[in-house]
Order: sequence, then C-alpha cells, then structure tokens
Amino acid sequence: MANRRHGKGTLLIIGGAEDPDDNDLRILPHLVKLAGGKRARLLVCAVATEEPSDSLRNYRAVFQKIGVAEVLGVPFDDRTEGQDERVMAQLERATGVYLIGGDQLRITSVLAGTRFAERLRERFQAERLFVAGTSAGAAAMSSTMIIRGDGGTVNRGAVDLAPGLGYLEDSVIDTHFDRRGRIQRVMSAFAQNPGTLGIGIDGDTAIEVRPSGRLTVLGRGVVFIFDGRVTHSNVAQVKEDEPLALIDSKVHVLPEGYGFSLKTRRPIVPKGTRRSGD
Amino acid sequence: MANRRHGKGTLLIIGGAEDPDDNDLRILPHLVKLAGGKRARLLVCAVATEEPSDSLRNYRAVFQKIGVAEVLGVPFDDRTEGQDERVMAQLERATGVYLIGGDQLRITSVLAGTRFAERLRERFQAERLFVAGTSAGAAAMSSTMIIRGDGGTVNRGAVDLAPGLGYLEDSVIDTHFDRRGRIQRVMSAFAQNPGTLGIGIDGDTAIEVRPSGRLTVLGRGVVFIFDGRVTHSNVAQVKEDEPLALIDSKVHVLPEGYGFSLKTRRPIVPKGTRRSGD
Repeated sequence: MANRRHGKGTLLIIGGAEDPDDNDLRILPHLVKLAGGKRARLLVCAVATEEPSDSLRNYRAVFQKIGVAEVLGVPFDDRTEGQDERVMAQLERATGVYLIGGDQLRITSVLAGTRFAERLRERFQAERLFVAGTSAGAAAMSSTMIIRGDGGTVNRGAVDLAPGLGYLEDSVIDTHFDRRGRIQRVMSAFAQNPGTLGIGIDGDTAIEVRPSGRLTVLGRGVVFIFDGRVTHSNVAQVKEDEPLALIDSKVHVLPEGYGFSLKTRRPIVPKGTRRSGD
Repeated sequence: MANRRHGKGTLLIIGGAEDPDDNDLRILPHLVKLAGGKRARLLVCAVATEEPSDSLRNYRAVFQKIGVAEVLGVPFDDRTEGQDERVMAQLERATGVYLIGGDQLRITSVLAGTRFAERLRERFQAERLFVAGTSAGAAAMSSTMIIRGDGGTVNRGAVDLAPGLGYLEDSVIDTHFDRRGRIQRVMSAFAQNPGTLGIGIDGDTAIEVRPSGRLTVLGRGVVFIFDGRVTHSNVAQVKEDEPLALIDSKVHVLPEGYGFSLKTRRPIVPKGTRRSGD
C-alpha cells in the first residue's frame, strides 16, 4: 500500500432513476470518469436487491458501452459473500465501487461488519477509493438512514431510522425526491438532530462529494438541502405521533452546477451566474 | 349597512380532509364558532365540485349536528346562480360562507365577476363577514392559486397558476400537504415571486387568519410556511423546463397552537413552550 494517503475518497450519491437504458446518459458516464475512465475497474454490488442478476447484467452492459476496463459484479445474496476470498480479491482490484438500489436495510444487514465492508471503508479512507451509490445505495451512505417513511405529517413516528454506512457524516439522504414528496420524512428525521443536514436528491440527479467537503450537483433535477439548525423545535416535548414544530430551518434548492460546502454549510453559486440584486 | 366597519373579516383556510363523518371533529366545530356558534347561518358553496348535492347533504348534516341556526346551500352549477336573487338573499342572511372542495378553477371560472362574488368580497371587507374554504376552496383564497402541479422537480413548467379570489394576499396556498408531497409545486410557484409566502396545509388542519394579519394553526397536522425571500435565484435566467435554484429560503413547520404574523413574517411560539436553548 505504497499509495496510502490521508483523506477520504470521492463519493457520488445518486437519487435513483439514473436509467441505464437511457439514450442521453448523464450520471453514469460521470461515474465512470470518477472511477478512472477507460482504465476503470468497477465493482457493482447488488446487495440491496433480492434479484441481483438482472441489475448486474444491465449495469455491466451500460458500463461496457460507456467504456471501462472491467466490470466486476457481486450479487451479495447473503453475508458469506462478504467474507469470500474471490470477492475480496475483486475489491482489491477495483478502482470504484457502486452500490445499486433496492432495500437499504439489506445493505446494512447483509454488508455491515463483514470483511468486505471493513476493507471497503479502509480503502475509501486510506486509499481514496471512489465509492458511488444509487437509490438504496445512496440512502445507506449517510450515518443515519431512513428505512421507512409514509410521507404523512411531520412527526417522529413518520420515519424509521437505522444506522447507515456512514460515508457521509452528519446527514440524512433521501432519494427519488421528485417522484415522491419526501420533505416530511426528511424533516422528521433531522428534527431529532438539528446538527444533521437533510439532503433530498431527485431522480437522475446526483451529488459528487469531494474529500474537501465540497459537493457539486449534476443531472436533470435538483437537490434539496435542509439545514436543520432551527431556532425552535418542540421535538423533545411531544409524543412520537404528535406533529413537530420547527422554526427557521433553511432550505436550498440546487440544480446542476451549483454546489454546497459541508464545512461552512453555505451553497456555492456557479461562476458567471448573476446573483439576484446584482 | 349600519354595522359597516373598516377591516377584513376572519378567514379559516382548511387543508382538506376535515372529514364530516369523523367522530372526533376538530376543524368544523371551530368553523361554526367563528361563524357565530348556535346563531350561525352558514352558506355552504359547492361551486368547486361537479356533483354538489352529496357534499351539501353531508355538510348540512354535520353542521346541524354541531349546532347552528341555519345551513344554506348553493350548488353553483353555473354562473347564473351567482346572479340569482334567491342566492343573493342567502348571502345577505349568512354569518359565514364556506367554499368546499373540488376543482379550484371551477371556483374562479363559475364565481369570479358575478354579483355574488362581488358582494361576498364587499361583506368580507366592509362587514367582516367570516369566510372559510377547504381544499380547492382553500387554494382559491390566495391571490395566485396553483391549478395543476405534477410534483416533479422544481421548475416553472411544474405548475400552472391562475388568479385566485385574493382573500389572502401575497401568498400561494397548497392543501393536502401531508398526502401528496407538494413542496416542489409550492417552491416552483413562489420562485417566480420571492415576495410571496408559500403555505402548505396538511389535511384536517387549518389556519385561522385574523384581520390583524396573525394566523394560528389548528388541527391534527402541520402547516409549512416557505418564505421565498431568497438571496439567490436563477428563475429569470432559465427556461420553463429547466430546474430552478433557490438559496436561503426559510421553512417553518407549525403544529396546532403555533402562529405566524403575516406582517412581520415571523412565527409565533405558544406561551409556555420552551424555546430550544432556554
């Protein structure tokens, strides 16, 4: 491990629906570029889905069409694969790992604590391995992930949370934000910890998170960022099914090209864009 | 008109689903109280629906059960009723007018510009007549109303707007906010005029708006208030179907008992509630 460096790798967190059959691909070519372009060896993990073979076949085809050196696929039917020597060897060869969609609770229950998960985290942190996730694979990136939410009103009972893989700290990620109105579950989640950022990513839209803590939006839709540092909340005083009060949350709506600093918690406007009032 | 006074009447704007068959009614008894309690003569306008008779029968039954002096009902099948002497006489007798749900564009297309609508506005403004609306009848209260929105991403093409009845100025009201995720269409609407407030009301939840400009939340859910005075927006620079950028919008989530001043644009926390940090 001569090339071990301090600092984390880059993340690409996709809001789902980055349709591999699409003729006008935006997100996946960028994923390939971040994984090393034509020299990329992509390890696609279908851990979140119960029928991984179709997904793996589709992604293999699209990545080969875009042009990579190798597509490695692991179905992750159960935890034994996370200890398997062949799979571990694939992880060592990979220049990028992609967690695809399905059920986020499968990701943590099948993957977390395995040799694979530990080595993946180590390679991300020490060797700056590129890691991407879509849909459930995106939700699992945050330290706390939403595993259920009915989109009802804003209360603690509206969401079930579980520990995520923790690749993006102090945040709750929700996906498919354009298809299903999910503001309620994001706000219910971050109400319980106002230090958390709520990040809602539209389908066919992604955030690239650099080790510096700067994220950039790409894709067709927008990214909502809810900054939960409210001036007033009643969360500690109400029962689980009682509606929450949250005052002075901030919300930013960011399309392609816009960014956000996770350090300063400020949006970044692309150069050349006029600010209102200028 | 000896009792003509300056100042507007009180509004009750309901997010829909205030179920007349419910055994635990919250909103409708409050509506009756605001209309005069046992002496209330309520005029229920079914203008928004194409099949008004069922709705009128249901509301008549529930208001009589709660206890009022009289329930007057107008189906408003077409614009001729808005000129009808019998209907005009009912409007003069009413202590409160209630616009029920259906299609908000029917409300303005059938009602606006009729003698009825003009006299209703006059009685609201000069005689402080109490006016209530639910669902489409609530959406029509704002000066600009949302008549269609697909809940896709945040862009101008995502919503169709039309002039509303204007009982609540400088605001866009959306209803059923708990059932259908409607943040995208509210934000798309107010992006086009950052002086506008976006108000999203859950089902079985309402805001009472006093002539002073103070609103108070009641009911089972919450009210979202989006304050669109953003520090940056790209709305003037992008095409209708391109995603919008909005930076530093504020959002407040307000449950029962909380209020908001339309004058100062600040939330009002109920007395006796601890503020975070106290």
